[in-house]
Amino acid sequence: MMKVNTLTFIGCDTPYKDAKVTLFGAPFDGTTSYRPGARFAPQTIRIDSEGLETYSPYLDKDLTNEKIIDVGDIDVTFGNTQATLMSIKDMTTAILKDKKKPFMIGGEHLVTLPQFEAILEVHPNVNIIQFDAHTDLRDEYCGEPLSHATVIKKIHNLIGDGRVYQFGIRSGTKAEFEFAASRTYLEKFTVNTISNIVNELKDIPIYITIDLDVLDPSIMSGTGTPEAGGLLFNELMNALYKLKGLNIVGADVVELAPHYDQSGVSTATASKVIRELLLML
Amino acid sequence: MMKVNTLTFIGCDTPYKDAKVTLFGAPFDGTTSYRPGARFAPQTIRIDSEGLETYSPYLDKDLTNEKIIDVGDIDVTFGNTQATLMSIKDMTTAILKDKKKPFMIGGEHLVTLPQFEAILEVHPNVNIIQFDAHTDLRDEYCGEPLSHATVIKKIHNLIGDGRVYQFGIRSGTKAEFEFAASRTYLEKFTVNTISNIVNELKDIPIYITIDLDVLDPSIMSGTGTPEAGGLLFNELMNALYKLKGLNIVGADVVELAPHYDQSGVSTATASKVIRELLLML
Amino acid sequence: MMKVNTLTFIGCDTPYKDAKVTLFGAPFDGTTSYRPGARFAPQTIRIDSEGLETYSPYLDKDLTNEKIIDVGDIDVTFGNTQATLMSIKDMTTAILKDKKKPFMIGGEHLVTLPQFEAILEVHPNVNIIQFDAHTDLRDEYCGEPLSHATVIKKIHNLIGDGRVYQFGIRSGTKAEFEFAASRTYLEKFTVNTISNIVNELKDIPIYITIDLDVLDPSIMSGTGTPEAGGLLFNELMNALYKLKGLNIVGADVVELAPHYDQSGVSTATASKVIRELLLML
Amino acid sequence: MMKVNTLTFIGCDTPYKDAKVTLFGAPFDGTTSYRPGARFAPQTIRIDSEGLETYSPYLDKDLTNEKIIDVGDIDVTFGNTQATLMSIKDMTTAILKDKKKPFMIGGEHLVTLPQFEAILEVHPNVNIIQFDAHTDLRDEYCGEPLSHATVIKKIHNLIGDGRVYQFGIRSGTKAEFEFAASRTYLEKFTVNTISNIVNELKDIPIYITIDLDVLDPSIMSGTGTPEAGGLLFNELMNALYKLKGLNIVGADVVELAPHYDQSGVSTATASKVIRELLLML
Amino acid sequence: MMKVNTLTFIGCDTPYKDAKVTLFGAPFDGTTSYRPGARFAPQTIRIDSEGLETYSPYLDKDLTNEKIIDVGDIDVTFGNTQATLMSIKDMTTAILKDKKKPFMIGGEHLVTLPQFEAILEVHPNVNIIQFDAHTDLRDEYCGEPLSHATVIKKIHNLIGDGRVYQFGIRSGTKAEFEFAASRTYLEKFTVNTISNIVNELKDIPIYITIDLDVLDPSIMSGTGTPEAGGLLFNELMNALYKLKGLNIVGADVVELAPHYDQSGVSTATASKVIRELLLML
Amino acid sequence: MMKVNTLTFIGCDTPYKDAKVTLFGAPFDGTTSYRPGARFAPQTIRIDSEGLETYSPYLDKDLTNEKIIDVGDIDVTFGNTQATLMSIKDMTTAILKDKKKPFMIGGEHLVTLPQFEAILEVHPNVNIIQFDAHTDLRDEYCGEPLSHATVIKKIHNLIGDGRVYQFGIRSGTKAEFEFAASRTYLEKFTVNTISNIVNELKDIPIYITIDLDVLDPSIMSGTGTPEAGGLLFNELMNALYKLKGLNIVGADVVELAPHYDQSGVSTATASKVIRELLLML
Repeated sequence: MMKVNTLTFIGCDTPYKDAKVTLFGAPFDGTTSYRPGARFAPQTIRIDSEGLETYSPYLDKDLTNEKIIDVGDIDVTFGNTQATLMSIKDMTTAILKDKKKPFMIGGEHLVTLPQFEAILEVHPNVNIIQFDAHTDLRDEYCGEPLSHATVIKKIHNLIGDGRVYQFGIRSGTKAEFEFAASRTYLEKFTVNTISNIVNELKDIPIYITIDLDVLDPSIMSGTGTPEAGGLLFNELMNALYKLKGLNIVGADVVELAPHYDQSGVSTATASKVIRELLLML
Repeated sequence: MMKVNTLTFIGCDTPYKDAKVTLFGAPFDGTTSYRPGARFAPQTIRIDSEGLETYSPYLDKDLTNEKIIDVGDIDVTFGNTQATLMSIKDMTTAILKDKKKPFMIGGEHLVTLPQFEAILEVHPNVNIIQFDAHTDLRDEYCGEPLSHATVIKKIHNLIGDGRVYQFGIRSGTKAEFEFAASRTYLEKFTVNTISNIVNELKDIPIYITIDLDVLDPSIMSGTGTPEAGGLLFNELMNALYKLKGLNIVGADVVELAPHYDQSGVSTATASKVIRELLLML
Repeated sequence: MMKVNTLTFIGCDTPYKDAKVTLFGAPFDGTTSYRPGARFAPQTIRIDSEGLETYSPYLDKDLTNEKIIDVGDIDVTFGNTQATLMSIKDMTTAILKDKKKPFMIGGEHLVTLPQFEAILEVHPNVNIIQFDAHTDLRDEYCGEPLSHATVIKKIHNLIGDGRVYQFGIRSGTKAEFEFAASRTYLEKFTVNTISNIVNELKDIPIYITIDLDVLDPSIMSGTGTPEAGGLLFNELMNALYKLKGLNIVGADVVELAPHYDQSGVSTATASKVIRELLLML
Repeated sequence: MMKVNTLTFIGCDTPYKDAKVTLFGAPFDGTTSYRPGARFAPQTIRIDSEGLETYSPYLDKDLTNEKIIDVGDIDVTFGNTQATLMSIKDMTTAILKDKKKPFMIGGEHLVTLPQFEAILEVHPNVNIIQFDAHTDLRDEYCGEPLSHATVIKKIHNLIGDGRVYQFGIRSGTKAEFEFAASRTYLEKFTVNTISNIVNELKDIPIYITIDLDVLDPSIMSGTGTPEAGGLLFNELMNALYKLKGLNIVGADVVELAPHYDQSGVSTATASKVIRELLLML
Repeated sequence: MMKVNTLTFIGCDTPYKDAKVTLFGAPFDGTTSYRPGARFAPQTIRIDSEGLETYSPYLDKDLTNEKIIDVGDIDVTFGNTQATLMSIKDMTTAILKDKKKPFMIGGEHLVTLPQFEAILEVHPNVNIIQFDAHTDLRDEYCGEPLSHATVIKKIHNLIGDGRVYQFGIRSGTKAEFEFAASRTYLEKFTVNTISNIVNELKDIPIYITIDLDVLDPSIMSGTGTPEAGGLLFNELMNALYKLKGLNIVGADVVELAPHYDQSGVSTATASKVIRELLLML
Repeated sequence: MMKVNTLTFIGCDTPYKDAKVTLFGAPFDGTTSYRPGARFAPQTIRIDSEGLETYSPYLDKDLTNEKIIDVGDIDVTFGNTQATLMSIKDMTTAILKDKKKPFMIGGEHLVTLPQFEAILEVHPNVNIIQFDAHTDLRDEYCGEPLSHATVIKKIHNLIGDGRVYQFGIRSGTKAEFEFAASRTYLEKFTVNTISNIVNELKDIPIYITIDLDVLDPSIMSGTGTPEAGGLLFNELMNALYKLKGLNIVGADVVELAPHYDQSGVSTATASKVIRELLLML
């Protein structure tokens, strides 16, 4: 008996009731001020993940042995940011209620906010580790408080000082860097100090958000605001692997804008980041 | 004495006080549901207009003899549709107050609404002629009343039956086509009947809105939602030229998304449409 | 209860038992001698069909009212043409056995052969109407009898003279055109005589194969071997609509190679051709 | 015994002593003011001509039956226009001395001048037929007398009134159009009157220059200055075929800038124009 | 006396009888399962090698001083893998018979097999050093034993344990890595240990195969299956230079798919790898 | 009161009388022998600089606090190298006369010559530091003495031995490298020794010219002649920062050819190099 065609991130087709991790897409880029297109990331990643092996020689684990389901994308209303954020929060809440870990593919970085809010309700002491080229610590951007450029500030507003860890940051206003100096843990340009924080984060629920523009644009040209001087792929991966022992309660990978990289390399790289992060959950 | 660098649509650098037409850009595509990028149209058109002659052999007129100023783009707040529409309306109102004709380069089609509203306040009996692949007659789109897909319906709400003329339409829902059948003048697919309406529109203020996707995507691939089966360039131009005698009080050209056409042909074609339409004002 | 993500051609998600038409993809381009990439057509078409309305103003019909299922792609073994052709034939045979009409998206043109063979077993008097830039009447190509360049000759071998109708043909060897002169119905360059054949084909089962390169490359640049001087979109459509009354027992649309047209216009056009042809079945 | 790899326009590998037509490339675009890249045309055309049949169903002739040699490209010195033009003139003179017809692939349009000069020395009463979007009748361009924008004026300077025929022209300054009105035969926009001139050109040596931008940019986006509103491929071809009986003593096809059209359609179209024109010599 | 146009890799036009190295292309990608296009590599490399100097400041040698001929491409039959492999083996055998060293530009990686077979007949104790992102150690792929994904396994089948050296490998199935653990020399991810093997390979004939996807996709995006986390260009080169003293009896460079990298960087990089490797032969 | 639209490099709109640095563009690529397009760099950089912050976290300085004006581009005459070079020299001379520092965006590398000549007249003991992949030390190129490939030799002719410092060089003829060995300071491949020269250059006026192809093409694919094996962005920046204490009297950044990198990364990277270098003046 034939069935309607399915499409998932490679190896992520466990029936929902058996799944431990639920992957979904949030194809929203409505507050992107410079170059839009992150909305195309989830579907493009699913298609191109076919070029990837399910086995990771880095972690010696295979996606087909994990229990993951890709349930598709939330509905997005362009022109209505609030409605979209609500859809995301509802999805994450539902996943958490079913005792699964949420894994989101953006979309722009603002989508992290509602997923984090849902997680915060379940894990009130959750901390966040951000890999990003940008501080995202503005209070508002072009007059708007809800923006890809304010998302970490909004999260800081929720959880306060000492619970936001920022790595690879190399762009922002002077005011943002000054704010970070006293209010968050921020490593400029690199990820060299990540080992330092692992011990202090033992036993604390951790949320990981990867803005793919933390990678050098040589390997991640398909993003809205490429910033030269970023991390090599192996640098990001080695930093991630150091977090292996932590209690990761949710994660997202955002800001792939696949159309800007016609070679497909950015999407392939994003897929590999996602595979490795899924294998760490 | 050297000055800060300027950039205008070719031949449009008359001092404001002398100008009869004021051109501006509205680089907004915040409600675009499918493929964004119309935000890049105004600047790309200005740059690429350098490849165009200021003289039109079709109209035997030259832009350098008309009095036109290109004053740049309005401010756009992505994530806040209302604020952006207000900026446009304010700009158009200011231009009209100074007794100049407004000419806007979009952006997506929703930008037509605030400019039309401003014109309606000055010309209460204005009619609108729309060249478009799409009906744009929805009441809402994905739950949003303000959208590129609802813009002509919103305008119809303002001016009522018999004042909206639609040409080249080849895409929409069944409900939209049924609405048009009794409430607007709609010619499906073509522009053959445009001569018919010229007589009845004599002496009535006319607003012209050209959604560039009315053109066949063979010549206009750089648009958000290309629809095969459109007008050839000469077909659109010949239809436009038939409107020469009318009292055109404002106009816009929208929905170029230049990045989708790396050849530059779409932008060059948009520039030529703009040149001809400017020469008709 | 959440489910694994699905992806179908827009509006084609009827449960299999209720479906009257079964759409599937044959992502094979293993004999393509010049520019490969037709393998990417089915998935790209599904993704991009989202930009299309389900309603056709040409036929005044809507895909959501027809009963169509998109069951996904057959398995392809690159390097083994025979195995792939067998998979296609098995799929078509299964669809026919379940009393549904098969509709295939290629892939290169060779995929027509196994689907036609399966149909021939059920409809022994089936005739074939081909829209194509190329004759495809070689006996072999670079030493290979099974090739995109021989497919219509192989079908002629099965059904003999007078049952192959070729339109829009503008490329081939002198020998191919000479063969066609006495053995098939071939209209060079255009589709002007299609009305002539409709009467004689009444009541005969008809198979339609559309090689998208029959369209002018201005609208269909995303194909392996573009040939200038082809049909405009409306010309092809009007020819197709003349076949509405016939007994169409199966169809395919082949030779989209989407990567060569980064604007997406070729894929959007292919999707529209598919929508219209589905609505005619 | 193996030999060094060769690359020719398809079917053009007759030994020089037997050849009747000598094809060469002039990969120069040094005066291109807007978008350069015509220098890449000859090699790209040779490579992509592999996708073309040697047989023309339009003319019922085959390149492999004609006697044509492709001898490669002349040397170009970027930064030294004079030296490059001299190389071209020397090449054409050598070809003519060997009693062969010269056929040149540009490069920008200025390359026509030296080839025409060489031909004029052998055929002092030669006339020229130009297919082009642009008048190319300036006296100088940005201060330079030798330019793609002045080439036909320079030729007119050599041969005087009544011997220059211009078709498809749709761009230029008002002064250029006024010059043409009294000094050349110029048909604006179209090629409808070409039959009119055939009789009067009987027995006169004719040089044909095709600036590919005469074609509509929908089919020829790969050119430096695309101008919407051009000829369809079949319109250009039908105009050309009307010249079949004339005494064509040389020809060129110029202004393909292949990189602007990543789909390859412009190059494929240029190749077909070249094939047809070669078959007419 | 003019001659038919030639095209070679830069500086490789020594007459065959004098040549010590014979370069040829194998433009085959018939078993490529993911993204085809390696067939375009040899011609694109020849064209773009014009941008390269013949002199290497790394090796202080110049291609014009070596005696190399580029004899062009073997014939490929798409749809018939066996016939194509036979053509390659015949070519390599002929080159070896004439006492020249064979250097092949792929094409996909499967083309290494027939060239290696021909070399093995002349050098029965030849070992192979592979630079690659992928293990290529499958027994079959999608049911096919002859595939780009099985090529090194087929070679291992011919020469047995201890004679296959694999570097830079970062993708494969768990089973492949397990096979390699006991049967080949495999360095995961990097080339740090290459010095270790140089001593033990002294005096043994060595075949070098470079799958260009061993390079990081930041510099080699134009390949079928890009894998993030690869070698920088200098890392690969430094590893290669360590092999300078070895008895290299043949080599190939495969898996450039130039169309995926429109910037030309991948092709330029491939050309430089080829230049350096040619200078080492 | 509305004004004509302006476009500057981000943050560079100080009124001329107050400015300390004057930025201008020299959009000339007339001697480019391989891949043209550097003419598009200045305008593309201005447009895309909008994606950049004005604040540098590397230097802890902000463009909006410096006094910089972007006065636009000089006029270029394609086909007349001399006239263009004269325009540049005139511009630089005028800037120097007004006691401002000149900063030029190319264009190809030849534009450095006239700016350097103007500076030499004011600072007769100026030295030059060049970051480049190529030696640019030819006496002539294809017969032309004025060329992108000869520019540093021409400057050496003006100032003699010991005053030219070359870094990152990895391409040239053997003769060029031999010339450099005794006549210039040249570090092959890298920038490791730059600290060595800082002391000896204290108090000497320094001109800095950055040919962007010194960067690895992974991050700078948009350049005429990409050369693998270049500097990472951070390597170039760290070398630059070492020059902070020097007396920099002028600078240029050349050879971005933005069209070859459709992702925009090359332009974004060039913009960042320009921002940092402007902040160092």
